[in-house]
Amino acid sequence: MTTPFDLLLQRVYEIHDLQKAQAVLSWDREVNMPAAGMTARTQQMTTLNRLIHTMQTSPEMGELIENAAASLNGDDYDSFAASLIRFLRRDYEINTKLPPEFVARRTQISAQANVAWKSAREQNDFAIFQPWLAQVVGLGQELADLYGYEDEKYDPLLDKFEQDARTADVRAVFNAVKAATVPLLRAIQERGQPVDSRILHQPYDIAQQQAFARYIAAAVGYDFNSGHLGTATHPFATSFSRHDARITTRWYSDFLNPSLFGTLHESGHAMYEQGTGEELARTPLARGASSGIHESQSRMIENNIGRSLGFWRVHFPQLQAHFPTALGAATVEDFYRAINKVQPSYIRVEADELTYNLHIILRFELEQALINGDLGAADVPAAWNDKMHELLGITPPTNREGCLQDIHWSRPSFGYFPTYALGNLYAAQFFEAAQAQNPTIREDLANGSPAAMLQWLRQNIHQHGRKFTPAELVQRATGQPLTHEPFVRYVTAKFGQIYGL
Amino acid sequence: MTTPFDLLLQRVYEIHDLQKAQAVLSWDREVNMPAAGMTARTQQMTTLNRLIHTMQTSPEMGELIENAAASLNGDDYDSFAASLIRFLRRDYEINTKLPPEFVARRTQISAQANVAWKSAREQNDFAIFQPWLAQVVGLGQELADLYGYEDEKYDPLLDKFEQDARTADVRAVFNAVKAATVPLLRAIQERGQPVDSRILHQPYDIAQQQAFARYIAAAVGYDFNSGHLGTATHPFATSFSRHDARITTRWYSDFLNPSLFGTLHESGHAMYEQGTGEELARTPLARGASSGIHESQSRMIENNIGRSLGFWRVHFPQLQAHFPTALGAATVEDFYRAINKVQPSYIRVEADELTYNLHIILRFELEQALINGDLGAADVPAAWNDKMHELLGITPPTNREGCLQDIHWSRPSFGYFPTYALGNLYAAQFFEAAQAQNPTIREDLANGSPAAMLQWLRQNIHQHGRKFTPAELVQRATGQPLTHEPFVRYVTAKFGQIYGL
Repeated sequence: MTTPFDLLLQRVYEIHDLQKAQAVLSWDREVNMPAAGMTARTQQMTTLNRLIHTMQTSPEMGELIENAAASLNGDDYDSFAASLIRFLRRDYEINTKLPPEFVARRTQISAQANVAWKSAREQNDFAIFQPWLAQVVGLGQELADLYGYEDEKYDPLLDKFEQDARTADVRAVFNAVKAATVPLLRAIQERGQPVDSRILHQPYDIAQQQAFARYIAAAVGYDFNSGHLGTATHPFATSFSRHDARITTRWYSDFLNPSLFGTLHESGHAMYEQGTGEELARTPLARGASSGIHESQSRMIENNIGRSLGFWRVHFPQLQAHFPTALGAATVEDFYRAINKVQPSYIRVEADELTYNLHIILRFELEQALINGDLGAADVPAAWNDKMHELLGITPPTNREGCLQDIHWSRPSFGYFPTYALGNLYAAQFFEAAQAQNPTIREDLANGSPAAMLQWLRQNIHQHGRKFTPAELVQRATGQPLTHEPFVRYVTAKFGQIYGL
Repeated sequence: MTTPFDLLLQRVYEIHDLQKAQAVLSWDREVNMPAAGMTARTQQMTTLNRLIHTMQTSPEMGELIENAAASLNGDDYDSFAASLIRFLRRDYEINTKLPPEFVARRTQISAQANVAWKSAREQNDFAIFQPWLAQVVGLGQELADLYGYEDEKYDPLLDKFEQDARTADVRAVFNAVKAATVPLLRAIQERGQPVDSRILHQPYDIAQQQAFARYIAAAVGYDFNSGHLGTATHPFATSFSRHDARITTRWYSDFLNPSLFGTLHESGHAMYEQGTGEELARTPLARGASSGIHESQSRMIENNIGRSLGFWRVHFPQLQAHFPTALGAATVEDFYRAINKVQPSYIRVEADELTYNLHIILRFELEQALINGDLGAADVPAAWNDKMHELLGITPPTNREGCLQDIHWSRPSFGYFPTYALGNLYAAQFFEAAQAQNPTIREDLANGSPAAMLQWLRQNIHQHGRKFTPAELVQRATGQPLTHEPFVRYVTAKFGQIYGL
């Protein structure tokens, strides 16, 4: 007998299959497509998008969800069925809140804003982007109104990427991070023993980088039997199922970090999707709980594990064997210090583990001011530079190294930036909780093996996919809500040791 | 004002976009997907297929076509609009002839038959496949009845791949080819000067093969700015638009031919799609006229050009530079003779230019007997071996090298095999006509440059895409219907010279 839940599942599977087809087209566009193929590819993706959106927002979909919900019989909160219906209800509610006219206008404006942003950045001329930024902010405000909110206008924007997170709570946590990080950075700058990172900037053969990337991704637990490593200008991870979760990397012939830490970062993302429960397959639950939780997985592999001394005590000899000329004379301690050098910089994506959050806090604060109407587009460059100086002690020489560096504000993805820093905080909180819960994890990590840690992540994070909100997941896994403390303890200990404070 | 033709176009674009999305998923499956991703990929492709089929066969589609047809106002036969409507009417008629029950049954049976065929081939045990072959033949007969026919039951099956071709006509042409080829083969075997092809079977570095494949594909006119070369176990070409037409190749470390001639072959296919007229974009006219015409383009590049002496006089030094150890001591004449060695063989895909058609004629004759009910599945192995001996003078030692070698009969694609040989005949006919029409083409080809020939193909074949039937296209381009004569003249002259007859 076909139950109402089966009927819902059939439709969910269909939509999911089309979304994954879309993901394949997008992956291919970044990795293999010749540039000339762009027009046709955009048409193909637009058609798929329209189809998916129509299916997701049809009244029939609403009925399928409600019929299935009515047929549930006391299923547990954390059951697959109850979790799926919870997710779909919310998703349907959100999707149907946007009038087609708004969706079309947003697509059009953001396409033009993106072109303007690119040319503004290229020519280092903020004036080109300014009117478009104003329009995109307008879209963000309109979006917030369409979604609705109780406390702050920024809430629904943040909620889109980090379900149920409240701006006030995130602000409190970020302020605590700021209060701890800024003095630590000053101490490092004033009293720290200098760290030399020049060994990372040498000729590194690209074929060898590729070989080592495969080695190190497998070493942290990325499963190549259900994966694939490709090349992309702007690296990313994506998955078409838990058995096909891919990573991409870029290769510089004179700098090791982008391929090495990029590979580890994307492996963390892909391992999350490889670890989602089999029962969630072909549904929207078969992915990360939120942007922030997803980022916690990539950052933990990249930083907490991939920039730890124990890990490199095991793998540095292999790295030396791949690059005997560049690293033959270095010690693992030299390398460890080099990859952990703290250095305020203008560009977010090049920031070190300690200062990265400050880049995010800057953006988070400016975004709120823009959305609340306290900051006009014209005043963004000055506000950016002031905050940069306040937090990092440096002032970008041009807007290209300042407020024009990121793509995010050329499309209305306000609310996304904070998830990067939330990822760092979640990572530290998971990392600390896992080790406190299980001494084996601590020991293994100290000895350079992430296997027990990965097991904990599989159990406490990955398998659940998107069944829970970020707050629920953090509470279940660590026994408490999000807090800045593990991150502060972690960076204080780590960088205190490295810089001899 | 939106005209009925515009409304039709919108729907055509949508269907086309989904078909191209499907093509991307298929390409990715062969080139990049980890094996574990197969289940999910099959689900994704099945969902897309169902959606496409529903759109193609909906009554609404029929109305869109008829409304647009009624609104045409004396458009020329070869105009875009008239050609598109002609194509769509026929396609709609064909698609709506198959009841969903039959389509579902065919999918199911051919999936199981494919599994049985694989295991029969692996274990060299025809008995495993025999009952499935009987079922697949049954499907082919049912298909013929559903499509309907006037003369022969095989007609509608052939028509599916080679529009308007009649079995009787193809049979007459193939008989003429057979009558000319078999004696020529005997003469070569009895009186020809021996040809040594051992230089092709040596160690060939794969990275160098890849570099040379890129060089030689560009040399024949494949545009990498609108292309991409990947690796696949079973090489193929595909396109997602005329600006993104891809080729794949396989690489053997001890045999040059598969990568070299495979690349040329697939380049020929892809160049066809790169050359389709821009106005045909995003419609089903933006592809080859038929399987046979498509094959003519790949075979002309692979054989008529890619196995000619003039061509290698230009490019052999480059080949030697890539493989100095293997080819440094060889002359271009040695190489030319080696790549044109005639040798009856069991396996179709390894056959030389002269004997290839005999492999096809064998299958064409057996297929008709199967479909007409004159041959039972159980009698296929004996019938195969008899015909092999009659045509090629050899008998396969096992069914694995005989009737179990091809995938085609594990799915009801009866009618496809003849298009391979038709491709060879069309290629020779185009090749001869172009040179007769324009002496520059003949001169350039003799000097190793295919540029003027490609120009002729662009003009006479490629740009028209699928606007015309194969017969119309051949008549327009060469001034006469399909004939075996150019092919017979071509092989007689070429192999007569090589073998000193």
